[in-house]
Amino acid sequence: MAKRHVYLEDIPLEEAVARWWTALEEAGAASPLPGEPIPVAKALGRVTAEPVWARLSSPHYHAAAMDGYAVRAEDTRGATETAPLRLQVGTQAVPVDTGDLLPAGTNAVIKIEDTQLIAEAHTPQITHRKSQIEILASVAPWQHVRPMGEDMVASELVLPANHKLRPQDLGAIVGSGHTTVSVRRKPRVAILPTGTELVEPGRQPQPGEIVEYNGIMLAAKVEEWGGAATRLPPVPDDFAAIKASVAAALETHDLVVVNAGSSAGSEDYTADVFRELGQVLVHGIAIRPGHPVVLGLASGKPLMGIPGYPVSALLTFDLLAGPLIARWLGQAAPPRPAALQATLTRKVFSPAGEEEFLRLAVGQVGERVVATPLRRGAGIIMSLVRADGLLRIPRFSQGHEAGDTVTVELLRSPEAIRHSIVVIGSHDLTLDLLADRLAQRHPGLRLSSSHVGSLGGLLALQRNEAHLAGAHLLDEHSGDYNVDCIRRLLPGRRIVLLGFVTRQQGLIVPPGNPKAIHSLQDLTREDVVFINRQRGSGTRVLLDYELKQRGIDPRHIQGYERQEFTHLAVAAAVQSRAVDGGLGILAAARALGLDFVPLLEERYDLVIPGEHYEGELLQPLLALIRDPEFGAAVAALGGYSTAQMGQELAEF
Amino acid sequence: MAKRHVYLEDIPLEEAVARWWTALEEAGAASPLPGEPIPVAKALGRVTAEPVWARLSSPHYHAAAMDGYAVRAEDTRGATETAPLRLQVGTQAVPVDTGDLLPAGTNAVIKIEDTQLIAEAHTPQITHRKSQIEILASVAPWQHVRPMGEDMVASELVLPANHKLRPQDLGAIVGSGHTTVSVRRKPRVAILPTGTELVEPGRQPQPGEIVEYNGIMLAAKVEEWGGAATRLPPVPDDFAAIKASVAAALETHDLVVVNAGSSAGSEDYTADVFRELGQVLVHGIAIRPGHPVVLGLASGKPLMGIPGYPVSALLTFDLLAGPLIARWLGQAAPPRPAALQATLTRKVFSPAGEEEFLRLAVGQVGERVVATPLRRGAGIIMSLVRADGLLRIPRFSQGHEAGDTVTVELLRSPEAIRHSIVVIGSHDLTLDLLADRLAQRHPGLRLSSSHVGSLGGLLALQRNEAHLAGAHLLDEHSGDYNVDCIRRLLPGRRIVLLGFVTRQQGLIVPPGNPKAIHSLQDLTREDVVFINRQRGSGTRVLLDYELKQRGIDPRHIQGYERQEFTHLAVAAAVQSRAVDGGLGILAAARALGLDFVPLLEERYDLVIPGEHYEGELLQPLLALIRDPEFGAAVAALGGYSTAQMGQELAEF
Repeated sequence: MAKRHVYLEDIPLEEAVARWWTALEEAGAASPLPGEPIPVAKALGRVTAEPVWARLSSPHYHAAAMDGYAVRAEDTRGATETAPLRLQVGTQAVPVDTGDLLPAGTNAVIKIEDTQLIAEAHTPQITHRKSQIEILASVAPWQHVRPMGEDMVASELVLPANHKLRPQDLGAIVGSGHTTVSVRRKPRVAILPTGTELVEPGRQPQPGEIVEYNGIMLAAKVEEWGGAATRLPPVPDDFAAIKASVAAALETHDLVVVNAGSSAGSEDYTADVFRELGQVLVHGIAIRPGHPVVLGLASGKPLMGIPGYPVSALLTFDLLAGPLIARWLGQAAPPRPAALQATLTRKVFSPAGEEEFLRLAVGQVGERVVATPLRRGAGIIMSLVRADGLLRIPRFSQGHEAGDTVTVELLRSPEAIRHSIVVIGSHDLTLDLLADRLAQRHPGLRLSSSHVGSLGGLLALQRNEAHLAGAHLLDEHSGDYNVDCIRRLLPGRRIVLLGFVTRQQGLIVPPGNPKAIHSLQDLTREDVVFINRQRGSGTRVLLDYELKQRGIDPRHIQGYERQEFTHLAVAAAVQSRAVDGGLGILAAARALGLDFVPLLEERYDLVIPGEHYEGELLQPLLALIRDPEFGAAVAALGGYSTAQMGQELAEF
Repeated sequence: MAKRHVYLEDIPLEEAVARWWTALEEAGAASPLPGEPIPVAKALGRVTAEPVWARLSSPHYHAAAMDGYAVRAEDTRGATETAPLRLQVGTQAVPVDTGDLLPAGTNAVIKIEDTQLIAEAHTPQITHRKSQIEILASVAPWQHVRPMGEDMVASELVLPANHKLRPQDLGAIVGSGHTTVSVRRKPRVAILPTGTELVEPGRQPQPGEIVEYNGIMLAAKVEEWGGAATRLPPVPDDFAAIKASVAAALETHDLVVVNAGSSAGSEDYTADVFRELGQVLVHGIAIRPGHPVVLGLASGKPLMGIPGYPVSALLTFDLLAGPLIARWLGQAAPPRPAALQATLTRKVFSPAGEEEFLRLAVGQVGERVVATPLRRGAGIIMSLVRADGLLRIPRFSQGHEAGDTVTVELLRSPEAIRHSIVVIGSHDLTLDLLADRLAQRHPGLRLSSSHVGSLGGLLALQRNEAHLAGAHLLDEHSGDYNVDCIRRLLPGRRIVLLGFVTRQQGLIVPPGNPKAIHSLQDLTREDVVFINRQRGSGTRVLLDYELKQRGIDPRHIQGYERQEFTHLAVAAAVQSRAVDGGLGILAAARALGLDFVPLLEERYDLVIPGEHYEGELLQPLLALIRDPEFGAAVAALGGYSTAQMGQELAEF
């Protein structure tokens, strides 16, 4: 903790890469790896280290290309429909099957369908030796013959070096007379997770501990690129231990990756370890997420220190290690993904000075492709799971306005984007269930949901940025849901309000409900400390409405003024026993193993513009919602009623 | 052979697929396969069989997002640059590192950079307990805090079923508290090569024998799709043996593929075997290549009989088995490859009644993307190795005219197409060497060569369909090469004639040259039988020129009238001892282990339009041609001189 704080560099990405690669090239560490012979049948996806020259011609003899009779073309001269010609079977016309060697002296094949077999008179057994065929047309030399070498000629190039092998290539290699092929050795990448806070998957992490999974992601990336990864056991934040582990890994690997400790904090040892084992070339790249990257070189081999946040780790590894592994495999750098123009749905402010990689949900709504920024935190791995695309915002841009047309690098196929149903609005667990069931019933069709609250969802519909929205907007005057807001926010639009679920809100309390809270009235008890949700949240609106209905004065509730921003934060406050209860949904209570006292019900509807409601894309979804089986699955979750599921509650 | 000929059906592809799938669905054989739990670290590329719900929240506690001090936001109220505020370390400001649990009672983190540590006066050792920090700004609640559940909340959906796992997904699964994941069992596909003519790879095939490699290609396809293939040992064309093998394979596999014997010839048993074990649903699909396909069903499992020619086998397997395996894995059918508009360089006649899949070489020449049909034979596996794209010609189209704009399904990335150097013209082995060396030195850059003869190459340049052409067109009047034809065919164009190689043509003779042929004059000997190349071929032009120069009357050469169409066919005629010698190149003699008597030299130049000669794309190629190392490699082949390699012989 007492260590002096060192500031990181802010090197532009291209410059950092250039500096590192120059050093690697000088050290001879950036050349394609040598070849190793392996059986052709195991070579799919591997890369040739040497050219493959044909050893055999294919075919290696003149071969019949049809079932029929091999003939000498000259013998068929003059045959016509009006003047058929007969050839003696066995001498002038030799029966052949496809692939057979063309008998000596013959140079063409007549298809069996184009011949008429003429038996010797009164011979009951047709034997070829004594038969003739009749033909109605002459044939040209080499008709229906595969001449020797038609496919390939011994000594010709079958495949050059540095070619990634596909199924047809394996066939051609074997067909050209080889049983093994020399492929580039797989690049060996050691991945060393560091951090005293890390626990191995399978162990229940205590507060302050983190399950190590970056190593698994990075190893999978290496595998995807065609390398071989070793995920080393995690080591604690200890200079000597990290150094020893890196030094050992260097002996047997082409690249050693340390994750994390790559920043300049008191327990960040990666740069120092690299410096002691070799040299540090770059420490800090002007990208976001991913700034604290260390690039080094030791024993003529590259070293990479990457940040601990999973999104940073995966993005920087992709940008920096991907091209290196490609080079080792004799491949061009993996191309950046296909790009697509899309309309950005929200303003994005990006700090100048850093190139930002923003994750986006992308969908096609009507004629437009719309891109909605996902949450930007480097710790939010779900942003990479959910992302359909990336937006690169250059270093000296300050960002984009909502409505801007931007170029999105796609992380899914354009086909998948076209088959995405975009739901924006309030989140509910049943939407997750819906997403899963949709994927099960209709492979290729996907529910892409962004959570921006009920109001945000209706505003997205207003701007034509979603196919539907989930909303639970209580009208405090009428006690009805959503109707009022739809009238106000989507005037003149044809809208269907579709019933989905009624969900229970209730008190989240410690296990066993020690304070025996059973009603809103109980919250006014002197021994009860409550925790509230923030003003404007649906739960807060519901609470205030119900308190008013019951004539309860909020000022009599201890903790009414203290606000949390999510259901789970309320549950966490209860779990820590800082408070006795808070209002929320069953799922939040369950997530932390707490008890739940159902108190209120609220309607959660789907709001769907008419053109999408009737459009082709949504029909499988609507059918699913109306399927009693799905309703039963929702009911089984607990905390929901599905009486109105799939009903048109109102039309506008 | 005596078996009655049965005609195949001509069912349109979509109809055949529909018929088969309907039967499979009725038999319950087209549903996603069940799940099996496997360690997450091994699950890359596998498909979830069940949804993954988060077991842990992430973070599972409120966590510091920065190195610094955890504080209570309320305690910082009022701090400004002009009125700094001091907080007691240990009580009001607790040191935390990124990822640490936020201490009870705190709700925000101040970055270490934004604080100033103030030691107690005269205390030489700074200890936090007795120190204060000074801050210049107040902070908001939850600043630099990752609230519990920010990434994911226990119970929420991490991934739906039927999702193909990527590296980030593995991270999210582990991060959400799982160590295993339920993935769909790999579809098990048995591949049974049949044919008495088949020999296993590694054995030298005799005439009439074929090395079995379709099974290796098909197994690789299965692997590529995410299935598990069993390549069974080949069985001869024997009804009982095939039936036994299929029946056994059915017990342990989801799909049995018989290759070949799928037609209706005398030794085609596939359909009969299927009929005896179950039923045949389709026999003959109106596609080309690939017509003789058998689709069946037995023991509630699909059976597939596919043709023996490798191109037919791979194309039909791709079209028919690909979607089935996708279905079993809960995936949408693999999307057809990305498409691109291109100009067809040659007229293509396609028989109406069959949907044709034409293989194409595709390249970008100037502003245009040009597509050149490759050889169409179903036995030419090299056409699939070389193909950059496929052109589907519908059933009732008769084909396309040269110059038509067609839609090409790409088999390589658009990036690879842009980085292809298109060479059209006469083929020479040194072009293969050039292609290999180019791929070695410049990964991602590719030489795509089509062989249409010297004249064809110049005509391609005339139509702007290639970047360069290889040509050895002897002018019978001047004895010079190519100059005359360039003037005639490319008038007014800026063209560079670049020296490449001088190659030896000579007599291909049996090993040991038993007839002791050492000159063209020897061909007129009575005991010597010659074989000629076809009229118009470069070799024939050269021969006729040289005979004339030497005053030899062709009529005195026995066999002068007998023509073969390739170097290799000449060599094959020599090998069969039907003739005593023929004129050709060293490589053809070597390919068949024959002797070679060098007699003549011919120049093989590169013809390059000025705009490409100076363009960026060709520079690496030109540098390579001028590299003495490459020249040495060519010389080492034997049969070549490289004295003029890379020299500008003429400019037009």
